Amino acid sequence: MELSRIYEAIQGDLGRVKDNLSSISQINFHWLSEQLDYVVRSRGKGIRPALTLLVGQLFNYNDNLKYLLSMAAAVELMHTATLVHDDAIDKSVARRGKPTIFKMWGEETAILLGDYLFAKAGESVADTQNPRVIKLFSQTLATISSGELNQLRTAFKLEQTRQQYFQKIAGKTASLFSLATESGAILSEAPEKSVKALKEYGHNLGIAFQIVDDILDFTSTEEKLGKPVGSDLAQGTLTLPAMRLLECYPEDNPIRKLFQNQDQDRQKNIAQAIELVRGSAIARECYEVAAEYCVRASHSLDELPEGASHRPLAGLADYIMYREN
Amino acid sequence: MELSRIYEAIQGDLGRVKDNLSSISQINFHWLSEQLDYVVRSRGKGIRPALTLLVGQLFNYNDNLKYLLSMAAAVELMHTATLVHDDAIDKSVARRGKPTIFKMWGEETAILLGDYLFAKAGESVADTQNPRVIKLFSQTLATISSGELNQLRTAFKLEQTRQQYFQKIAGKTASLFSLATESGAILSEAPEKSVKALKEYGHNLGIAFQIVDDILDFTSTEEKLGKPVGSDLAQGTLTLPAMRLLECYPEDNPIRKLFQNQDQDRQKNIAQAIELVRGSAIARECYEVAAEYCVRASHSLDELPEGASHRPLAGLADYIMYREN
Repeated sequence: MELSRIYEAIQGDLGRVKDNLSSISQINFHWLSEQLDYVVRSRGKGIRPALTLLVGQLFNYNDNLKYLLSMAAAVELMHTATLVHDDAIDKSVARRGKPTIFKMWGEETAILLGDYLFAKAGESVADTQNPRVIKLFSQTLATISSGELNQLRTAFKLEQTRQQYFQKIAGKTASLFSLATESGAILSEAPEKSVKALKEYGHNLGIAFQIVDDILDFTSTEEKLGKPVGSDLAQGTLTLPAMRLLECYPEDNPIRKLFQNQDQDRQKNIAQAIELVRGSAIARECYEVAAEYCVRASHSLDELPEGASHRPLAGLADYIMYREN
Repeated sequence: MELSRIYEAIQGDLGRVKDNLSSISQINFHWLSEQLDYVVRSRGKGIRPALTLLVGQLFNYNDNLKYLLSMAAAVELMHTATLVHDDAIDKSVARRGKPTIFKMWGEETAILLGDYLFAKAGESVADTQNPRVIKLFSQTLATISSGELNQLRTAFKLEQTRQQYFQKIAGKTASLFSLATESGAILSEAPEKSVKALKEYGHNLGIAFQIVDDILDFTSTEEKLGKPVGSDLAQGTLTLPAMRLLECYPEDNPIRKLFQNQDQDRQKNIAQAIELVRGSAIARECYEVAAEYCVRASHSLDELPEGASHRPLAGLADYIMYREN
């Protein structure tokens, strides 16, 4: 399913969220305004805010639209803030085909701009006036930061279990997806059973999304990704395809060499790992794992009240499997 | 007035805030737990959380104690988070007589740990269940980040006005003081006129506090400060005493030399600037400016309802003038 079709019913409101995000750069401090404008312009596909709105559409959408729009903006702002900080941490120079804030203005600015974006996200979630959602929002930020710290701690470590991998991607990615869906359900006054089901849906969708991200880091192109392929390996992040590659080639493995000595033959080892994954069944195997999580996500939708049209949400689970960037 | 006397009526509750802060390190992730323990142990004088509680004591304290304690913790956590990020930005190696998080675990950890602390601050403010205070909290973080960005932008710039200086310290310091007092007033159900007066009090106290901080960076000792003297100059921050020094010695000025060429005779220029300030009337003049703001802060207290004992708040305005660190 095309993203434009999935977004069909919320297209106008998603546009309003984007307009609200753009408006944060209209401040009386030219330097900061320029950076904010830069960062909100280079936005992605808007999956997270779309999730909040699409979930809202299943229940009492119109009466709570104001709050759902605030929440959608909050989710996207938090996502943007974490990306700005991630790029400073990873010293990444490109994202979405453009130089990062880190590359453009340096690390100090990236830290403070990220903080500013967290603050704007906090203001936006405060506008929902819903204490439960506001608390969830901060808990999610704690989970994300903790997940990122966990990733940092295990960088360039070869001995990692599947369980550790899933724990990390649950923290750094799935938690924000489930915040987007759970808060959408709460704010549209969904029954508790549905809130729970949609939280689960978001979690599983997020896990699948991150696995696909991790595959694309090997199989896609710099042009499509908007950043170099092999970025995860360059940062020492052991993703699912990388784990599989280590299992398939226990001896003389380029990832083993890279992680054991980051300086020697760095580019050669990364290129070789990419080539090995592309020439093997690893990507397909990992897609199968992602697909399992999409199936789980879809199963959660069966828990929703009859009559609620969850086709866009099912479509999204389909889309994230076949996306190219 | 001694700090212990100022804190007398809230000593027990301030202890509870400290206990709550300590408890955030009790998590099931050893690495992060260790860092959190380190950062919450090396706490300062607790002026910001004390302000929230002292203000609360003027009104309906006991009925709202739970919320006031949450707010006090939130204010201190936000303060701690900004310090952790500031140290990463300034590459500071010591604070409060101990190595910084940046020094101990590196910049990447400092960024993520700061984010984690912002999240915990957000959770704590969410516990106040007061939408107005929650919104104020995020607005304050935006103001602080914006103030810090402004400081970054003007680093090593000689042409700065008094107005720019006051604008910066209002953003980076006074905003958090006024959040502490304003939220204390709101949460203890103070009348609106008192909320406004206490917000003003906090703002002016914060300005005075920062001016004294800026003076101590010249006149105190590394032992008392817990970090090297001259840190502001080393980071290119033009504070009030530095501005006065530039005015007093327009030619052959060590600050001018330092800002124009950061690499040449760096330590010598810093040492010379410190010596010149110490040997002149500059510190006294700056103390007079700080004192004006303390007077303004005290005037705000006159707006409070009769009978409200604001002696501790008046005492605090006195204390921050004569503190040694």
